[in-house]
Amino acid sequence: MTIRALVWGENVHEQKNKVVADLYPDGIHGCIADALNAADGISATTATLQDDEHGLTEKRLSATDVLLWWGHAAHGDVSDQVVDRVARHVLGGMGLIVLHSGHFSKIFKALMGTPCNLTWREAGERERLWLAARNHPIAAGLPDHFELENEEMYGEPFGIPEPLETVFISWFQGGEVFRSGVTYKRGAGNVFYFRPGHETYPTYYDANVRRVLCNAVRWAHNPAARIVDVYDAPNVPVENALEPIVARGPKLHEDGGDGFR
Amino acid sequence: MTIRALVWGENVHEQKNKVVADLYPDGIHGCIADALNAADGISATTATLQDDEHGLTEKRLSATDVLLWWGHAAHGDVSDQVVDRVARHVLGGMGLIVLHSGHFSKIFKALMGTPCNLTWREAGERERLWLAARNHPIAAGLPDHFELENEEMYGEPFGIPEPLETVFISWFQGGEVFRSGVTYKRGAGNVFYFRPGHETYPTYYDANVRRVLCNAVRWAHNPAARIVDVYDAPNVPVENALEPIVARGPKLHEDGGDGFR
Amino acid sequence: MTIRALVWGENVHEQKNKVVADLYPDGIHGCIADALNAADGISATTATLQDDEHGLTEKRLSATDVLLWWGHAAHGDVSDQVVDRVARHVLGGMGLIVLHSGHFSKIFKALMGTPCNLTWREAGERERLWLAARNHPIAAGLPDHFELENEEMYGEPFGIPEPLETVFISWFQGGEVFRSGVTYKRGAGNVFYFRPGHETYPTYYDANVRRVLCNAVRWAHNPAARIVDVYDAPNVPVENALEPIVARGPKLHEDGGDGFR
Amino acid sequence: MTIRALVWGENVHEQKNKVVADLYPDGIHGCIADALNAADGISATTATLQDDEHGLTEKRLSATDVLLWWGHAAHGDVSDQVVDRVARHVLGGMGLIVLHSGHFSKIFKALMGTPCNLTWREAGERERLWLAARNHPIAAGLPDHFELENEEMYGEPFGIPEPLETVFISWFQGGEVFRSGVTYKRGAGNVFYFRPGHETYPTYYDANVRRVLCNAVRWAHNPAARIVDVYDAPNVPVENALEPIVARGPKLHEDGGDGFR
Repeated sequence: MTIRALVWGENVHEQKNKVVADLYPDGIHGCIADALNAADGISATTATLQDDEHGLTEKRLSATDVLLWWGHAAHGDVSDQVVDRVARHVLGGMGLIVLHSGHFSKIFKALMGTPCNLTWREAGERERLWLAARNHPIAAGLPDHFELENEEMYGEPFGIPEPLETVFISWFQGGEVFRSGVTYKRGAGNVFYFRPGHETYPTYYDANVRRVLCNAVRWAHNPAARIVDVYDAPNVPVENALEPIVARGPKLHEDGGDGFR
Repeated sequence: MTIRALVWGENVHEQKNKVVADLYPDGIHGCIADALNAADGISATTATLQDDEHGLTEKRLSATDVLLWWGHAAHGDVSDQVVDRVARHVLGGMGLIVLHSGHFSKIFKALMGTPCNLTWREAGERERLWLAARNHPIAAGLPDHFELENEEMYGEPFGIPEPLETVFISWFQGGEVFRSGVTYKRGAGNVFYFRPGHETYPTYYDANVRRVLCNAVRWAHNPAARIVDVYDAPNVPVENALEPIVARGPKLHEDGGDGFR
Repeated sequence: MTIRALVWGENVHEQKNKVVADLYPDGIHGCIADALNAADGISATTATLQDDEHGLTEKRLSATDVLLWWGHAAHGDVSDQVVDRVARHVLGGMGLIVLHSGHFSKIFKALMGTPCNLTWREAGERERLWLAARNHPIAAGLPDHFELENEEMYGEPFGIPEPLETVFISWFQGGEVFRSGVTYKRGAGNVFYFRPGHETYPTYYDANVRRVLCNAVRWAHNPAARIVDVYDAPNVPVENALEPIVARGPKLHEDGGDGFR
Repeated sequence: MTIRALVWGENVHEQKNKVVADLYPDGIHGCIADALNAADGISATTATLQDDEHGLTEKRLSATDVLLWWGHAAHGDVSDQVVDRVARHVLGGMGLIVLHSGHFSKIFKALMGTPCNLTWREAGERERLWLAARNHPIAAGLPDHFELENEEMYGEPFGIPEPLETVFISWFQGGEVFRSGVTYKRGAGNVFYFRPGHETYPTYYDANVRRVLCNAVRWAHNPAARIVDVYDAPNVPVENALEPIVARGPKLHEDGGDGFR
């Protein structure tokens, strides 16, 4: 079974900044999709902010197993309606991988329920990612640590809920640390945040980073059918109770009614 | 040190439904505040939906250690601006206790990042709460289980993230179970959801329920000064790095700039 | 790739109790292995307490991807040396599924670090398992609840650490609840505890139970190579530090030494 | 209410190594007890490996709210019987704070169920601890980071179960990172591991470290009465079931019997 990945790119820096355009001529999303398509069992396509409905239509998301999200300069330009749609699909079982500056994307903040803030510095300093969870599927084939010679620094405290698992922790040359790979489950959807990926460095060409992305797509994939009624709160009429009961006491609702929301 | 609790009540059923009005003549919020005020070291006041800014002004929240939230029929009438303000205070360290149908409140859904949905039945059936975490501070002084003879049923699956701790699990006469007491941390704020409390039953007069509420207020209280910059993402200029580094490689940002959001 | 499952059965009741012997003529382990062998991609064999080294030799465990454990009457007869060996393989990446009364097995208690105790009653009462984590891989293909008409009761509080995920919660006819399906990670090994399976009832012939077991084997399987040095604490000599440092201050150890344990 | 802390010191290096003896003339345990006794509401005493029953008699533990544990060279000399006794008290509600090389103590490994291994280097290098959980009670009054100019390095992967909360993460000059402050609950007992504290450096005189220790004692203190039956698994006779049931099906046990272990 081939996993259908969709790489969403904001595609703003690539159009406006020569450094980024030269580094990622097909866009950051294009580079990431190439990495995924080179892996067994993954088929990746792309969508961008500039596409109709940002390329994230109901039809497209329904045909997506795992969505990857890179954004930075234009989080506010992403339509709330599209964010709600993406959230519904994640809750229904679509995997979501949030990359680097996507920590401030509407979709990540909405699913975390926290500010997702951090400290940062753009100095092209050395980052070393350490594995905190040996043999985690997202780290398959990786050594206990790997380096990126030039990266932006993100520092703790990172404003996220306690992760389900902490997979990577980064060391920075300038003296900071950061939880660089963390997992969550939201509804039926697996969510992974992965820190590296500043647009002015060739991070997405790094073999270890590409391996993490491929592993993460496989990890995030939930093969079960997408749940559609993710917000339903069904009433169970008294006569359908699994154990026979007789209604007692004063009532507010009619049987089988909709309830308040 | 006295803990300053604020009990927020939607105060709609109390005005429109004779059963509820007779049961809670001072409002559900009034009954809960009475329970808290009878405990050592807690001083409780109330606010309602109908108050200016729902009674949740910046000044009021700044003087609140723990907020309790009961709502049901009018979640949609709560102003988004007030919800954002409450969220900011929780992230900064204010405790939050969400009660019963408050599972569908804007504030709880926003902090969880999930639908918080469930199945339900209003049949006045027996609920038995079991302690899953012995000697948890929220369960101080409680037996391993206690019963509420008449309650609304809430059933699994409950659409929440994995809790930090599962304190109570309910058994229902009609055959369902429910994670009735769960803890979370969001930013510096402790969050507790407690299931019982349907408005047509005398749940908030129950001695065990009142004990849980008092315990939960003490547990949720974070005595540290409220954090005010909960959304900040400060830039660390290269020259201020804790370890001496020299900026390398291409840059997108000016030093000390604001970054994108 | 076929997952190699090994079903370990204590095989005591099957030899001594006519009810159990009639119900499980090939042993409980044999019945479970049959269920697994009927599934795609799983190949199951069995081992018992009475085998040499309980059938859990180094060679056998090295060729096992996922171990299932059913024991009840003879936990104390399992050799500590074998328990240590099993623990080492779990920490190195072998999956472990602990069944029913295996909550009191030496291996489960050792990996949990807690008593794993509970309340219990053998009355052939109805158990209903509710799904708390929709679309969890262990629940693939299952409805939101399923029933076992006759089961032993296990009740909370269950003396385990907070699970990574709570997959199932049971309702019992006599009034109790129980966290019936919980996941953990220990080292590189995935661990799942599944409650049902009292020896005097035909639980392991139940289609839903068999589906859970097959799903759990797939979930617990870690395809990475088994880690062998699970207890190592390597010294990193100063001259091999990833960043150049100069040793300072008084020392207790020789460079490259073994350290204390 | 005064919290009764007991600081357990191995007291081996202090007797055999001049550097350590000069640095900690009253023992590492003595220095830590001094720090605690200088704090409001804490009363600390000490015990050592050389004391009868290592100073950890039933009577002493019964009068202890929080136990702190420093050991390094002689983990193997601690009697298994005493370790079992300490574990029983932790499960019953006694707080436990494990310090530095105590990661390899029998009690910590037993409660974690994992190897608790790590990489290490004794080079007197700089350690910087970052706060990952803002306003956590254990970090009360601390800045977002603090430094220890000379410390032993401990590096990831750290062989522990996923923590309940990650409070501190360390940066090391030589290029490693480490989860330096992690919380767990085991039974009714709160457990905190805190990394710094190599015996040849003056770490336990550092004001920030001393503050963490005092905070941690307050956090770990569970004021509820110690649970004594931490290993019990009581049978609930059919006639005492909370909901009326009639025993059905074949049975293995006599009513009210002890069950197997």
